[in-house]
Amino acid sequence: MALILYDLAGAEPARRFSPYCWRVRLAIEHKGLSVETIPWRFTDKDVIAFSGQGRVPVLVDSGKTVVGSWAIANHLEQNHPERPSLFDGPGGTAFARFVESWSDTVLMPGLMPLIIADLFNHLHEKDREYFRSSRERRLGMSLEEAGANRESRVKGFQQSLEPLRTTLRMQPFAGGDEPNYGDYIVLGGFMWARSVSPFKFLENDDPVALWRRRLLERFDIARNAPGYDS
Amino acid sequence: MALILYDLAGAEPARRFSPYCWRVRLAIEHKGLSVETIPWRFTDKDVIAFSGQGRVPVLVDSGKTVVGSWAIANHLEQNHPERPSLFDGPGGTAFARFVESWSDTVLMPGLMPLIIADLFNHLHEKDREYFRSSRERRLGMSLEEAGANRESRVKGFQQSLEPLRTTLRMQPFAGGDEPNYGDYIVLGGFMWARSVSPFKFLENDDPVALWRRRLLERFDIARNAPGYDS
Repeated sequence: MALILYDLAGAEPARRFSPYCWRVRLAIEHKGLSVETIPWRFTDKDVIAFSGQGRVPVLVDSGKTVVGSWAIANHLEQNHPERPSLFDGPGGTAFARFVESWSDTVLMPGLMPLIIADLFNHLHEKDREYFRSSRERRLGMSLEEAGANRESRVKGFQQSLEPLRTTLRMQPFAGGDEPNYGDYIVLGGFMWARSVSPFKFLENDDPVALWRRRLLERFDIARNAPGYDS
Repeated sequence: MALILYDLAGAEPARRFSPYCWRVRLAIEHKGLSVETIPWRFTDKDVIAFSGQGRVPVLVDSGKTVVGSWAIANHLEQNHPERPSLFDGPGGTAFARFVESWSDTVLMPGLMPLIIADLFNHLHEKDREYFRSSRERRLGMSLEEAGANRESRVKGFQQSLEPLRTTLRMQPFAGGDEPNYGDYIVLGGFMWARSVSPFKFLENDDPVALWRRRLLERFDIARNAPGYDS
């Protein structure tokens, strides 16, 4: 039975922009599993009420509901051990938490001001008020203030990628010779940006840009997803 | 036959401060192997000329010479597979490169201005001119300029640790339930600081400080090493 994934969508149902949902979609693809994705908007709380909470990703696998990207990745790893591993062992699972923490505290906060205005413009009409009020409360400022002067932030953002860049000078993927869940955690952030924003925040010859391209070449679902190749 | 490690030392032979040598010493301890460490100074180039280069760590294992912390850790893992694993699998080995890159590009550059003046004062007399001229050339400024106003840098330094802190809110060690080479990479930076500087750069209740204490409690060689418990 195919997996079912509730996946955050923009005004167009095919525009999927959640970095956490992208982690899961890439993990499912890595495992070679079939998935039916259901476009979901922030305000469709009733649609996922069965999961006991109000955020995606939500995965349904043979009647079992799993919530959140980390729990889903581990569910896939444990329940489909015959498929290619997402973590390549217990050390990989443990250190993936560090990659995740770096993505959540450095990469995504760094991308946010660069893409927030574009992201807002791609939201479904019914989500806009919810998004604006919840994000402005979290940010302590308006979306417009958060996204102001993005050109002046690009150098600082590029500098913040140095740990990833240094890694990619030594090996083609975070996971080593082949990509694994460590790569999908990070690529999720870049897919978030790609799906909504034409803003160019990487130089073409940046090892990070070259890695992103290598991954897009491998994953049709990412390369063919609605978005901008900046 | 015991391993032999050439290990950077300060004016006192027992004061070992190289973050890269600390990674190796902790890795050797993790493997439960015996090691004879030879105190080495920056200007003792002739002493390690047999290694074909001029920096430590240099390990000699049964007549084989291995240079550099990453190569040594991998040598230990491959040549002592019956001992506890340093990486816990290929995913751990790959992601350890990311932990290393983060340590080398964020943690250590962040610690440097906080400890550089204290470090200089602990150097052997014969190393001081070499250290000053080589580091000032690399930094593009004097050691005193690099270390100026350290109090004003502490908040930024603490903020830069957020990926590590977030990881340690989810699991006790970078390696998961037990420490592994990922922890030793990062602790190496903190041992560098501890060995030369009384400067307090972490709050006592910081998850990073609590993790550091957990590791010091496990490793006599770290806890009992000459240094400052700030």
